[in-house]
Amino acid sequence: MTPFKRLGRKTAYEHTYNPALLETFPNAHANDHFVKFNCPEFTAVCPITGQPDFANIIISYIPDKLCVESKSLKLYLHSFRNHGEFHENCVNTIMKDLIKLLEPRYIEVWGEFLPRGGRRPHFPPRSKRRRRG
Amino acid sequence: MTPFKRLGRKTAYEHTYNPALLETFPNAHANDHFVKFNCPEFTAVCPITGQPDFANIIISYIPDKLCVESKSLKLYLHSFRNHGEFHENCVNTIMKDLIKLLEPRYIEVWGEFLPRGGRRPHFPPRSKRRRRG
Amino acid sequence: MTPFKRLGRKTAYEHTYNPALLETFPNAHANDHFVKFNCPEFTAVCPITGQPDFANIIISYIPDKLCVESKSLKLYLHSFRNHGEFHENCVNTIMKDLIKLLEPRYIEVWGEFLPRGGRRPHFPPRSKRRRRG
Amino acid sequence: MTPFKRLGRKTAYEHTYNPALLETFPNAHANDHFVKFNCPEFTAVCPITGQPDFANIIISYIPDKLCVESKSLKLYLHSFRNHGEFHENCVNTIMKDLIKLLEPRYIEVWGEFLPRGGRRPHFPPRSKRRRRG
Amino acid sequence: MTPFKRLGRKTAYEHTYNPALLETFPNAHANDHFVKFNCPEFTAVCPITGQPDFANIIISYIPDKLCVESKSLKLYLHSFRNHGEFHENCVNTIMKDLIKLLEPRYIEVWGEFLPRGGRRPHFPPRSKRRRRG
Amino acid sequence: MTPFKRLGRKTAYEHTYNPALLETFPNAHANDHFVKFNCPEFTAVCPITGQPDFANIIISYIPDKLCVESKSLKLYLHSFRNHGEFHENCVNTIMKDLIKLLEPRYIEVWGEFLPRGGRRPHFPPRSKRRRRG
Amino acid sequence: MTPFKRLGRKTAYEHTYNPALLETFPNAHANDHFVKFNCPEFTAVCPITGQPDFANIIISYIPDKLCVESKSLKLYLHSFRNHGEFHENCVNTIMKDLIKLLEPRYIEVWGEFLPRGGRRPHFPPRSKRRRRG
Amino acid sequence: MTPFKRLGRKTAYEHTYNPALLETFPNAHANDHFVKFNCPEFTAVCPITGQPDFANIIISYIPDKLCVESKSLKLYLHSFRNHGEFHENCVNTIMKDLIKLLEPRYIEVWGEFLPRGGRRPHFPPRSKRRRRG
Amino acid sequence: MTPFKRLGRKTAYEHTYNPALLETFPNAHANDHFVKFNCPEFTAVCPITGQPDFANIIISYIPDKLCVESKSLKLYLHSFRNHGEFHENCVNTIMKDLIKLLEPRYIEVWGEFLPRGGRRPHFPPRSKRRRRG
Amino acid sequence: MTPFKRLGRKTAYEHTYNPALLETFPNAHANDHFVKFNCPEFTAVCPITGQPDFANIIISYIPDKLCVESKSLKLYLHSFRNHGEFHENCVNTIMKDLIKLLEPRYIEVWGEFLPRGGRRPHFPPRSKRRRRG
Repeated sequence: MTPFKRLGRKTAYEHTYNPALLETFPNAHANDHFVKFNCPEFTAVCPITGQPDFANIIISYIPDKLCVESKSLKLYLHSFRNHGEFHENCVNTIMKDLIKLLEPRYIEVWGEFLPRGGRRPHFPPRSKRRRRG
Repeated sequence: MTPFKRLGRKTAYEHTYNPALLETFPNAHANDHFVKFNCPEFTAVCPITGQPDFANIIISYIPDKLCVESKSLKLYLHSFRNHGEFHENCVNTIMKDLIKLLEPRYIEVWGEFLPRGGRRPHFPPRSKRRRRG
Repeated sequence: MTPFKRLGRKTAYEHTYNPALLETFPNAHANDHFVKFNCPEFTAVCPITGQPDFANIIISYIPDKLCVESKSLKLYLHSFRNHGEFHENCVNTIMKDLIKLLEPRYIEVWGEFLPRGGRRPHFPPRSKRRRRG
Repeated sequence: MTPFKRLGRKTAYEHTYNPALLETFPNAHANDHFVKFNCPEFTAVCPITGQPDFANIIISYIPDKLCVESKSLKLYLHSFRNHGEFHENCVNTIMKDLIKLLEPRYIEVWGEFLPRGGRRPHFPPRSKRRRRG
Repeated sequence: MTPFKRLGRKTAYEHTYNPALLETFPNAHANDHFVKFNCPEFTAVCPITGQPDFANIIISYIPDKLCVESKSLKLYLHSFRNHGEFHENCVNTIMKDLIKLLEPRYIEVWGEFLPRGGRRPHFPPRSKRRRRG
Repeated sequence: MTPFKRLGRKTAYEHTYNPALLETFPNAHANDHFVKFNCPEFTAVCPITGQPDFANIIISYIPDKLCVESKSLKLYLHSFRNHGEFHENCVNTIMKDLIKLLEPRYIEVWGEFLPRGGRRPHFPPRSKRRRRG
Repeated sequence: MTPFKRLGRKTAYEHTYNPALLETFPNAHANDHFVKFNCPEFTAVCPITGQPDFANIIISYIPDKLCVESKSLKLYLHSFRNHGEFHENCVNTIMKDLIKLLEPRYIEVWGEFLPRGGRRPHFPPRSKRRRRG
Repeated sequence: MTPFKRLGRKTAYEHTYNPALLETFPNAHANDHFVKFNCPEFTAVCPITGQPDFANIIISYIPDKLCVESKSLKLYLHSFRNHGEFHENCVNTIMKDLIKLLEPRYIEVWGEFLPRGGRRPHFPPRSKRRRRG
Repeated sequence: MTPFKRLGRKTAYEHTYNPALLETFPNAHANDHFVKFNCPEFTAVCPITGQPDFANIIISYIPDKLCVESKSLKLYLHSFRNHGEFHENCVNTIMKDLIKLLEPRYIEVWGEFLPRGGRRPHFPPRSKRRRRG
Repeated sequence: MTPFKRLGRKTAYEHTYNPALLETFPNAHANDHFVKFNCPEFTAVCPITGQPDFANIIISYIPDKLCVESKSLKLYLHSFRNHGEFHENCVNTIMKDLIKLLEPRYIEVWGEFLPRGGRRPHFPPRSKRRRRG
């Protein structure tokens, strides 16, 4: 009935970083169009101190052949929960996993982190990429 | 008295996707001007799970020879109510129906969807198109 | 594994008013405490004209012996989708169904409806002109 | 004492479209500068149905030899009150009248209309109940 | 098909104060519940100067035996368009007409008027300059 | 140098619910005064599905003999990270732990949760308590 | 010319807590009236760690015989700059100094502190006092 | 034609405090109703330093036999322009002049002043008064 | 002690337009940098009617050799208080005085004026009524 | 355990300007990405009058080989606490210290200062720099 491993099925939540959770579906439209996700449920831990970080992850892309299925994206982002990685690296990791999965025409990932020790609100790396060719 | 099939007449609401509901009137102005509609009453259903989606649809265009009559646009958007289509496809369908109807100089359609499962607010496809020539 | 008929299971969406979708779990706390839900995904149709209505339903209650399970509440609210009922009646129906289900110490239901005919705020033509020469 | 027909004098309000109400004064500055008016008191009627429209009219221009006197602009905008014209035409008419009057270096006119049928946002029934006993 | 004179029928707009436009339907609920309307499309004229006034009218009531039908309320409010009455009197007139019509358990009417003479906030000249050389 | 086990010392983060992390200091003021904390870094997991929940926890209390030290409060709230508990229970647990620790004159705990499945934002239990005597 | 030691004179800034900086003038009005100050320029240091704290101090009072002169209040608040005191104590100290100075009919002091370590924004003690008799 | 000395006539602006500018008209309604004015165009000067003060004056009252005519109120407020008076006194003076003029059932005057020297935004005296009897 | 005529000295306020109040200090930085002032305390009078105007003046510039000292800028802006000049001219005068003083690399001056006749937004009568019996 | 002198260690706060507090870590990503910090806890004193200044410092940069460690950045900014420097110089000093430390591909520093004497909110220097080569 459903061609997806996760959409329309009972959900299992993983709390360990797992890019294999991401799934795709074919882009049905030849014209350039933006897809944007605003994901306020992101948390990881500082690799030095173990202190938890909380962020809103904002993903914008122009699909080429493939789109990311949105429930699989949610589960992928939840998989950072017990992952020890710096702010900057988390955001770059998400962007690189999506580039590998989708080979999009354009992608931009933005992380808006809650303050640690008062620098409020600080927004670590936004990354952009344009497809070659 | 009214040259329109819907404006100034008693309204019949259809709940099945019907692009024939759209009507036009001639553009009286040679100069480029923007027309923008903000339509918060949009709902469709997920074709895999049947889960309802809710969106605000934002349409901006520069007319060439024709403008879309706004009551007919409302009825057309209501006709997606029981239509099973992904976020991305709904927005591209609306844009393509309006391009076919109006052959506008410029058009952009934006859908701002309520979150499913917490990714809030996510904004699927915005599409742009410039008239050739 | 799950004592609920809907939470933690694959979801079936119904589009016909069905109060039997509501489920409860026991309230574990003797002290008075408020539970509040903000549900922006509500739609029904006008019984006279068939015109769709859209609302944000806000439910606040103090449980006595029972609490409403929140996924079942979502499915119950979705079941008004093709139901023909006036604004005022929808909100009173929701309140009465919850009183019957929960016998709460206190309950308040608020419906915040979009204006009928919608498309708010729409911005017709902006025109630009530069002087020749 | 006043070189103007309207500024500094007792005001007569006209409710019929009258571009002759507009007055000018010379631009005293050679450098390009923007003049912007935000006029929330605009109303006209639909030429098909007679339904009233309400808008905020935003005018921005760079004067060349002449500026529009602001009280005369207010009276001119009030003169659309009983005028039957579509959204799009009202805004283009205002722009064309100002181009004819001022021959500005740049002009832009924006109309932000209330949704037709209005009553926005209306909040139907809130219901309260306290358990007996 | 429709028991109402205006809902579900082609609309005729009147621009002269007419309380006979108001229609009612029976209140189906014994419990106290609030009904609130927010009506941003209100205009009248000053009886001394003829200057137009614009307001947002906010009506909140607890029905007893009768409710006001909302389309008829819109048409009633539009009927003040060419009516010469002071701010204070308009709002009191609306409240008294609704008391006479509905004999509500509670009623409150609020008028939020734009400032007379309006054009708010207007932003005169911005000037730019770049150093030569 | 520091009388506290956590303030002014290197921090160890625990991710398992641990009320023993909470520390106090004496209230130096006889007059009633409110202390309020707004803690946006709260996460726990659903005991049925494992789905993560995110909340903003708002704590307001009037101290009697003791105040809660704020760094220890932060570490205590972080200790819910891998704890499986319903919305309603998390908030009641926090309130009860603080009552046991502080015996405050007044306490109120509010949890503002991110939506699951779209009911956005929903605010589960607020609890109040007044000291006896 | 000026009856005040600070208003209308060259200003000397002190950075050590000094309640003697506060000055008064007689209240000329018998009727109860509120005086409210919003002071966003407050900083002190944590007595345990030396970490700086930043707050917005909000003071509201009903004068009896005396009012506080506002420039002297600014200088008094600046005098906490190098003062080591907990959040809660700073706010209570300000309130007690003002009670001693003014014997007001009513006073309330509120401190809105920037977050330390992520609890953002937290609002420590608000204190109220009503004059006896 | 106009029974007022100022409404509907050419306006003369006075810049010296003059309560004789205020005019009234009879209250036509027996029921209690609030009248509220929000007046952002208020300025006076400090009697000690000559420094200008700017405020938003908010007046709310329940009329008894008389209402204040709003254009005369504007001119009265402008008459403080070169008047040297403390924040607190300006607001109390306005309230007392209106009490003398109107003998209202209730009146409240609020002044919201721009900051002097950084205490931003501070709101000096709000005064309330209830009619005796 | 202070190289300035106004900073760090007792202040004299002038209410007559006086560009000689402006003072400068040398720009210590070779790199381009923006300096921006937001000055909400500006008032002048209409040269035709004497009606006061109120504005927020926003000044942005890139200094070359000189910067404007900010206290002197405040006193200069206050000196327009009794100056009769149109909106457009005030803003252009400020820009030209600063160009003459500073010869900046870039300058932009923006005036955001309150609407003439002001009292914005005013809320006339709210009426309440409870049914007898 | 920690390669940093400050992150993951007990913190010592310095209140004298000290750029040696800044620490770096290597940039792990070849692609251009923005890092942005919003630091609302900044205070310094005016070198002429001793009056304290408060600002929100906003830093945005694209790293080349090095990133600034964020706890060290916080401590560096706190070290301006008793430093006498003009608005403009503080912001330029921060930018220059970060350029020297990081040799970033791009950097921009913005200071948003609280008003002194009413010019609210004024935003002194924003500085930009692009790497040569």
